[in-house]
Amino acid sequence: MNDIIITISRQYGSGGRQIGQKVADALGIPFYDKEIIDLAAKESGLAVDFIRGQEKQLTQSLLFSIVTNVTASGGTFGPNVLSLADQVYLAEANAIRQLADKGPCVIVGRCADGVLKREKPLLRVYVSADLESRCKRAVGEYGDKEETIKKTVRDRDKQRARYCQHYYDQAWEDADNYDLCLNSDTLGIEGCVKVICHARELLSVK
Amino acid sequence: MNDIIITISRQYGSGGRQIGQKVADALGIPFYDKEIIDLAAKESGLAVDFIRGQEKQLTQSLLFSIVTNVTASGGTFGPNVLSLADQVYLAEANAIRQLADKGPCVIVGRCADGVLKREKPLLRVYVSADLESRCKRAVGEYGDKEETIKKTVRDRDKQRARYCQHYYDQAWEDADNYDLCLNSDTLGIEGCVKVICHARELLSVK
Repeated sequence: MNDIIITISRQYGSGGRQIGQKVADALGIPFYDKEIIDLAAKESGLAVDFIRGQEKQLTQSLLFSIVTNVTASGGTFGPNVLSLADQVYLAEANAIRQLADKGPCVIVGRCADGVLKREKPLLRVYVSADLESRCKRAVGEYGDKEETIKKTVRDRDKQRARYCQHYYDQAWEDADNYDLCLNSDTLGIEGCVKVICHARELLSVK
Repeated sequence: MNDIIITISRQYGSGGRQIGQKVADALGIPFYDKEIIDLAAKESGLAVDFIRGQEKQLTQSLLFSIVTNVTASGGTFGPNVLSLADQVYLAEANAIRQLADKGPCVIVGRCADGVLKREKPLLRVYVSADLESRCKRAVGEYGDKEETIKKTVRDRDKQRARYCQHYYDQAWEDADNYDLCLNSDTLGIEGCVKVICHARELLSVK
């Protein structure tokens, strides 16, 4: 199996995106993150900025989605009318499928493991780190505000967890839902890259 | 750091014990599982069979422990009198500390990561597998009854989760609480052994 697709779920500030990029570089395969938004926008007709905005307000969107559905059953909207959050979800899931169809790659975020489960051979990776180092990275590397950083980090994780729960009925932080979970504090960014590449190699010869 | 202690938490039937034994063999370091019971018995004066029995009925014991404490505050027992479950817990935790003091080793179960956290350099591993293969292994290798196997497997996991929650306020199945989580279905027993040894090597040179 050399057609394995690596999906990376990551706690906010854990360095999971960087790890994914480095894994893709090391293996010489494509890395997809923002590309998913571009393709989703192109195929769905939704604007890139709109999709980005929806991703950032995910929790609110999902609540809106629930409210919309309730209203819909009441009358104004038909049952086949999708909420904006659901439209973005579908556009991104379709983009993930299209990118995965091209061959082996690394895909970060958006519950790609949930989208591709049962469709593609996967190595489902989750990257975590201690809260302190995540806050440090988010402030130092992502430019988040220091004053509210703990809340920012926790809120982003909650959003990701709710998204997975909502669309895949899956506990995002539960080790059982992954093939490999790594702590980037313990192993370091480069260590995580090496362990992921090693695991993929083991799967390839399995 | 070549003094790393590897702790292995594992879903029932995931093959985590076997993986731990093989990791210890590959690294030429001791493997501790039942040895913890023997040492705990020796040091505490509790009988080996009694400790084994307590481990098997963990959930009930913890409930008993809570009830005992409530009663204690009422009068018959003083606040310093420990429940039987707590006595077993303390005896095992002491045994784990004594064994860890001897040097690098692999310790399976009993929330050893919780006992040794902040005391020793650890590689905290969690091994999971799909329910179907865990049931198959539990029937085929551990000799559990086929008729009730799903319940047995789930009950054992619940016991382990409650133990961790009770004594360490820690979600047992949560990836964030480990350095490395592996699915033994995806990677295979030998694959898991290799990835753990690789991760330990990376830590040793860190």
